[in-house]
Amino acid sequence: MTKTLVSHVGIAVRDLESAIKSYAVLSGLQNPAIENIKSEKVKVALFSSGGGRIELLAATSEDSPIARFINNRGEGLHHICIYVDDIESKLSELKKAGIKVIDETYRLGAEGKKIAFVHPQNLNGVLIELEER
Amino acid sequence: MTKTLVSHVGIAVRDLESAIKSYAVLSGLQNPAIENIKSEKVKVALFSSGGGRIELLAATSEDSPIARFINNRGEGLHHICIYVDDIESKLSELKKAGIKVIDETYRLGAEGKKIAFVHPQNLNGVLIELEER
Repeated sequence: MTKTLVSHVGIAVRDLESAIKSYAVLSGLQNPAIENIKSEKVKVALFSSGGGRIELLAATSEDSPIARFINNRGEGLHHICIYVDDIESKLSELKKAGIKVIDETYRLGAEGKKIAFVHPQNLNGVLIELEER
Repeated sequence: MTKTLVSHVGIAVRDLESAIKSYAVLSGLQNPAIENIKSEKVKVALFSSGGGRIELLAATSEDSPIARFINNRGEGLHHICIYVDDIESKLSELKKAGIKVIDETYRLGAEGKKIAFVHPQNLNGVLIELEER
């Protein structure tokens, strides 16, 4: 029962190229994978793979959620994503426990994975993404 | 080369017992390990073990760093801790790259692990803890 809980941590940055340089030194990992997620208007650099990775997130448009986040709060930790075994039953369970969700049902994220966001309101101000293993 | 990068994510909370209830539903993990870290004036609840865990952090005194963080910015994501192979050489490397560190050398954290903090200034506003594997 020591499966990795955290899939990744998302960090909102203004300038992806510059952030990649610092996080390459920090992590010791060169050449992160880059993804352009058009639906979210965001460009992502992934350090490491599998569980426990870091994702740098830069807006590709002024109306991207990441641009709004940085305008309101500045750069920094944006969300954490945790693994769940069954995303539909987890969403029901959270709602039953009075924890507000953002996505009523899952949607498909990068690599066709089932994901859903949970509202920070009942989770001590932390935006949580769920990802089905 | 797919070693877990993130050791844990630290979340600052006001009320540890109440936060434990929500994060137990979220993670599906009951009965987190509780540690009282007197030097940091903080009480910690650990969800999962090994890499990729979540740590809820509550202040045990008004002059705890966590109390100051919550007073200034509210509850939420506080820091991420990443694994490094050699903490002394990583601190040198960061300084050489112009990345400001908080701890000039490592100190001993929970379980006798070598840890050190890096300043958010050159890391897009993210407080990073290094932990030697």
